[in-house]
Amino acid sequence: MTARADPSQVAEVRAALERALGPGAVKADPDQLRAYGRDESDTGEFPADLVVLPSSASEVQAVLRACQSAAVPVTPVGARTGKSGGSLPLHGGVSLSLERMNRIKLISPEDLIAVVEPGVITGELMKAVEARGLFYPPDPASLDSCTIGGNVAENAGGPRALKYGVTRDYVLGLEWVLPDGRLIRAGRRTIKGVAGYDLVGLFVGSEGTLGVSTEVTLQLIPLPRQVMTALITFASVVDAARAASAVLAAGVLPRTLELMDDLSISAVDGRGFSFPPNAGAALLAEVDGIDEASVLGELGRVGEICERNGASQSLAAQNEDQRQKLWSARRSIAIALRAVKPCKISEDIAVPRSRIAEVISRLKAMGEELGLAVATYGHAGDGNLHVNVLYEGPSERPKVDRAIVRMLELAVGVGGTITGEHGVGYAKRDFLHLEQAPELISLQRELKRFFDPAGLLNPGKMFPEI
Amino acid sequence: MTARADPSQVAEVRAALERALGPGAVKADPDQLRAYGRDESDTGEFPADLVVLPSSASEVQAVLRACQSAAVPVTPVGARTGKSGGSLPLHGGVSLSLERMNRIKLISPEDLIAVVEPGVITGELMKAVEARGLFYPPDPASLDSCTIGGNVAENAGGPRALKYGVTRDYVLGLEWVLPDGRLIRAGRRTIKGVAGYDLVGLFVGSEGTLGVSTEVTLQLIPLPRQVMTALITFASVVDAARAASAVLAAGVLPRTLELMDDLSISAVDGRGFSFPPNAGAALLAEVDGIDEASVLGELGRVGEICERNGASQSLAAQNEDQRQKLWSARRSIAIALRAVKPCKISEDIAVPRSRIAEVISRLKAMGEELGLAVATYGHAGDGNLHVNVLYEGPSERPKVDRAIVRMLELAVGVGGTITGEHGVGYAKRDFLHLEQAPELISLQRELKRFFDPAGLLNPGKMFPEI
Repeated sequence: MTARADPSQVAEVRAALERALGPGAVKADPDQLRAYGRDESDTGEFPADLVVLPSSASEVQAVLRACQSAAVPVTPVGARTGKSGGSLPLHGGVSLSLERMNRIKLISPEDLIAVVEPGVITGELMKAVEARGLFYPPDPASLDSCTIGGNVAENAGGPRALKYGVTRDYVLGLEWVLPDGRLIRAGRRTIKGVAGYDLVGLFVGSEGTLGVSTEVTLQLIPLPRQVMTALITFASVVDAARAASAVLAAGVLPRTLELMDDLSISAVDGRGFSFPPNAGAALLAEVDGIDEASVLGELGRVGEICERNGASQSLAAQNEDQRQKLWSARRSIAIALRAVKPCKISEDIAVPRSRIAEVISRLKAMGEELGLAVATYGHAGDGNLHVNVLYEGPSERPKVDRAIVRMLELAVGVGGTITGEHGVGYAKRDFLHLEQAPELISLQRELKRFFDPAGLLNPGKMFPEI
Repeated sequence: MTARADPSQVAEVRAALERALGPGAVKADPDQLRAYGRDESDTGEFPADLVVLPSSASEVQAVLRACQSAAVPVTPVGARTGKSGGSLPLHGGVSLSLERMNRIKLISPEDLIAVVEPGVITGELMKAVEARGLFYPPDPASLDSCTIGGNVAENAGGPRALKYGVTRDYVLGLEWVLPDGRLIRAGRRTIKGVAGYDLVGLFVGSEGTLGVSTEVTLQLIPLPRQVMTALITFASVVDAARAASAVLAAGVLPRTLELMDDLSISAVDGRGFSFPPNAGAALLAEVDGIDEASVLGELGRVGEICERNGASQSLAAQNEDQRQKLWSARRSIAIALRAVKPCKISEDIAVPRSRIAEVISRLKAMGEELGLAVATYGHAGDGNLHVNVLYEGPSERPKVDRAIVRMLELAVGVGGTITGEHGVGYAKRDFLHLEQAPELISLQRELKRFFDPAGLLNPGKMFPEI
């Protein structure tokens, strides 16, 4: 286990980085240190000793070299919207924030690529490319504040992953600083390319433990010309889940098929959008394509399949404003659930699509058995469910912990995963063994040591500390 | 450099494997050894000392352990259709053929996955999943004989990569034997999942140098309901290339947009399909989608854009038989070119899409300058061009070698890659430095040593021997 950073070594790093980056790039104000010690994982606060804000790849190299040389832990951080504690500086040391590296360097409609710095906000990149008739599909719920660098670290997903895949499917190339400060350029700018090992594939999703991106080359696609969205309500979440499976089994591939259960709906109902009365569950289906008739036809097909599976009502968004209201309701579930009970934990299992309804039933039964409120929403189309346990406070925590283990065991038991898109980080490091065999975990620990022998880059993440 | 296997050590491996796998799984007939020493890369013949045919993961483990223990090189081999020499046993030793592991273990329409052994022939998997309304998109030209294991090793592409991506985009999970014989299961069975490092991403495309797949879990998608195909001819290949760029720039995404130049056309003309007279170049465009009207509309759009860019004629396939004839012409180019001149080398550059026409012009000029016949065909839509230099024999080889270097330098110079889909292997190991910086190559060499300290698994591939 990496010890907490030694104060004299931190002072050494501070002096070195104030010289190299200028004093304005090194912060040690207690409020800031605490702010960089929190994220959206609800796993506690771990203040850094320093927050360092480099403005270039060479400054990132300088930070990593200074930390290696003084044996001070360093943890890269984006917008602190992560759900697994990936950016928490568990052992103090340096929070290496990429927020100042926020330039969009290139958008090329001819080559269908964008080149950006890691601190670019995902939603801003989306708007910039859409203004030029292009599309960057990955859409994590935090897209208005999260950054491309964080998305790369966590291999972020989102609703549109159902049709369009996740961040890794769009990362063609990376400029990357290794833990020892070496700078490499891996990958390519062309759509295809197989020269050498796919280091880009390895780095995307490595949760800030194998290096730090300083430039990201992204593939774009043409902006779909037509998008249509409908909210379809059901009496029960199991009906909704069955309908989602039936849509996919019929060979229909909407770009999103989002599920909300009764608790999720009641948490957001009336805040900008009012759900039909008695909606016990809902699917938010969005279809895109090349012309109005085919997209309308496909959305109609989704509606028919849902009706055959017990849907009570279907509301198609009639304009962009209505569409945004539906999405805003969906995206605000995570925050709205905080108002239901004082505490919540949010899980992120993914299960084979054929098992979605069964898993949801079993989770509801588990909640009733343990006397816990369980809210399930998320990306039903690809089996990625955000299961939230809501509770009153620390006295209920042991029960909640039992619920978490049972939930993850259930997911793995049906052939699923403990994390569909949030990452392992700190929040799930003690549960990785539920899914992965000891040999696989050992190999990954060895690989981490290969890249970071001293274990100074983002220590304590992904694997339990020994 | 790994020396050629020592005969006494080979004898030791042979005895051990005949005991472990049975004598029928170990071959040393000279004709067989020579056959396993060739592939489709035209780089020569490198006979193995033994061909070993395991039938299970544990037998693959036994082979790798025996080779490690006796310090005998071992090279995995699929169907020997590779174009970069990835399966050539350069230093002799054992050819580890996966051809007996050819079971399709599972096709799940509910979960949209298939689980297969590595020796399954790609085209047979395609047929099996299509019979159940599902689609496995990656379509290398050799699909009637190549295997999924080989596709995984090389991260194989194909025409449909334009819309649907390459092999790595469909590999969810791998059972994998490491060079030291350890068996791991990496990845997942769900569409999404981010637990741990993306070892699957690293292993796909590692060209048989980091381990051997023994089971592959593949993502499937719903079979597109409508497919339409057209051959569009042009006076010149530069016109055709410009038209291809214009189609994509207009936001149209066909599933294939294949280019053939005049030499390619004349090589296949009249063999089952007759091209319109005076066709100096052609695009083979295929569009798919959810209903006939939208697909017809989209193919019409492709046709209009091509007409505005100088197309002379457009022939839409009227039925499946005509469609197959067009594809058969396209797929037979590589073989037909062999009849034009006694020798050929086939390159596999990929360039940014905006540079395709320019690159083709410069390649033609280069061919004229050097007095060499240059045939260009391939996946114009994603900039992946197969550039073939045709020549009379060894006396022309120095000129051909100059042409290869100039071609690869040109590709890299415009922001492209030396290999879009064939891999580096043996054929391009001396050119990797044209594209990748020394630091990146060093890191990859270190990574290879991490997985294979003795350098016995597929030695001599990807990087120059030292």
